Amino acid sequence: MRATIIHKPGDIRVENVPDPKIVTSTDAVIRTVATCVCGSDLWDYRGINPVTEPHPMGHEYVGVVEAVGSDVTSVTPGQFVIGSFATSDNTCPNCRNGYQSSCVHREFMSTCQAEAFRVPHADGTLVATPEQPDQELIPSLLTLSDVMGTGWYAAVAAEVEPGSTAVVVGDGAVGLSGVIAAKELGADRVIAMSRHASRQNLAREFGATDIVTERGDEGIARIKELTEGIGADSVLECVGTQESMLQALRSTRPGGNVGFVGVPHDVEINGQELFFSHVGLRGGPAPVRRFLPDLIDRVLNGRINPGKVFDLTLPLDQVAEGYRAMDERRAIKTLLLP
Amino acid sequence: MRATIIHKPGDIRVENVPDPKIVTSTDAVIRTVATCVCGSDLWDYRGINPVTEPHPMGHEYVGVVEAVGSDVTSVTPGQFVIGSFATSDNTCPNCRNGYQSSCVHREFMSTCQAEAFRVPHADGTLVATPEQPDQELIPSLLTLSDVMGTGWYAAVAAEVEPGSTAVVVGDGAVGLSGVIAAKELGADRVIAMSRHASRQNLAREFGATDIVTERGDEGIARIKELTEGIGADSVLECVGTQESMLQALRSTRPGGNVGFVGVPHDVEINGQELFFSHVGLRGGPAPVRRFLPDLIDRVLNGRINPGKVFDLTLPLDQVAEGYRAMDERRAIKTLLLP
Repeated sequence: MRATIIHKPGDIRVENVPDPKIVTSTDAVIRTVATCVCGSDLWDYRGINPVTEPHPMGHEYVGVVEAVGSDVTSVTPGQFVIGSFATSDNTCPNCRNGYQSSCVHREFMSTCQAEAFRVPHADGTLVATPEQPDQELIPSLLTLSDVMGTGWYAAVAAEVEPGSTAVVVGDGAVGLSGVIAAKELGADRVIAMSRHASRQNLAREFGATDIVTERGDEGIARIKELTEGIGADSVLECVGTQESMLQALRSTRPGGNVGFVGVPHDVEINGQELFFSHVGLRGGPAPVRRFLPDLIDRVLNGRINPGKVFDLTLPLDQVAEGYRAMDERRAIKTLLLP
Repeated sequence: MRATIIHKPGDIRVENVPDPKIVTSTDAVIRTVATCVCGSDLWDYRGINPVTEPHPMGHEYVGVVEAVGSDVTSVTPGQFVIGSFATSDNTCPNCRNGYQSSCVHREFMSTCQAEAFRVPHADGTLVATPEQPDQELIPSLLTLSDVMGTGWYAAVAAEVEPGSTAVVVGDGAVGLSGVIAAKELGADRVIAMSRHASRQNLAREFGATDIVTERGDEGIARIKELTEGIGADSVLECVGTQESMLQALRSTRPGGNVGFVGVPHDVEINGQELFFSHVGLRGGPAPVRRFLPDLIDRVLNGRINPGKVFDLTLPLDQVAEGYRAMDERRAIKTLLLP
């Protein structure tokens, strides 16, 4: 089958590789219906994460079950499924606590930009839809595998409540999904920080009530102006740099919360500043599996349409152009069809 | 009147100073019934915080109202009052959100180891008891001004819930108060980390179910052994060093929470470690005013007795010995009588 392999930074290829197989009795093999390129894939593409040897790429997916191991009971061949980018048994203490992305058996999916792939711990990782979904819902269902699930977790970790004010730092696909999440969780005011017209428009369509174009200290001052001088109740940090983390922490009111989902690169948080800020902080890889049943419902009944974050659709063979377009910020997010 | 003045590290004196007066219409002047020495006072005493010029000391107090400004309505001369170490108007947005220690008019009290002192924003800072309390309740009421209120906030920030497992890092007066708080908030298991026999005994008396004497990596491993291998639901960090913060973070389960109330000195938190830990973190100077009415009730009806943290009582004139005994860890906490 064909699969995406990164050889070195900037060098993405589609190659023929052996078909995936059931390895252990809890595995499933999935035939890809759609997959995509993640902002976090760009860390490898840009060489910020080292690429020491060629390896497959991709951790976002929807597809049809092709085969299952002998111990798999919750999904069967032929079903349409969505799964988390992180596998989970959904039975260990961390899973029971709702943190499936810290499952004691967690593996990060990494071979999904391909025609098919193997999913370990299929029962605890995958959720099947009641029936084969309409074609136009595929992009939105695909986002649940990572970006929409991650934006949702950012809003949950930031403790967005009905009537509150939420700020979203980052206007990539996760940030835009965070706007949807903040609105769905009842925020009265959702402030998107963005200076790109197309992303501002999508943020507004997703429910943003205000757009702030300033960054850094000016951005923080603007948020304070909009919030009685004290800062926002909830801030979703969807970037992962020192600058974005400080912007998030300093835009939050005392007693408010930052949910941070951008994988931190060289981020250090000063204990004394955090102390006197009174801000609560929680982050991490999103426990997507916790949210999947609810989010699938919201997509299937038309309540949310996060698939709009895909502004470029390409055949798998053109995956290299998909990476390039995102790297050059010509595309928010690239959907790939096998 | 007599008041405590620090001249330089290690040099604490009682001197005659002018009597406090009403300065603004929202002030009260309090005649001290009891005051005490705080662990945080030792930062000055030890020269870790610079002492650039002689200044008064003390931020914990109970007393009787002697005079009030013309705008004070909630307390009257003759009443017995307890107040927070941080003043608050109790009307600003931060106060309304329950973070009175981030009041826009906050001042940190700093002249209370004296026969009398001035309290700004008396209405928003002080709480009067229904009547003059019995003498034996004075120590416990005094702890509410800071250490018991701070231990309570640590447990609230760490989101201690009924049936949960809580760990307390730090066996000073705040940590011991945190044991009381964790028990009162319903933790089934309260693990105190301590290697001092007298403090272990008090922790057990306050409700600790387990004592862990190991520190650092060994302490973390011991907590994991006691918690299904995943860590505790809630950890109260009551020290404020890099070592204690790491011990707290690494003893908490994914999805659990650290409440940190030790004022951080040279603490840096790595963003990536915090991210992958899934641990929630909230700290700060305790919003004692939020908790005062409830905690006063718990003391008056005999439900809690945090005054036992005082194992040394001295007349104000011997305040220097009070500092010395705490510095040398001969005393957990020194109560001072004017």
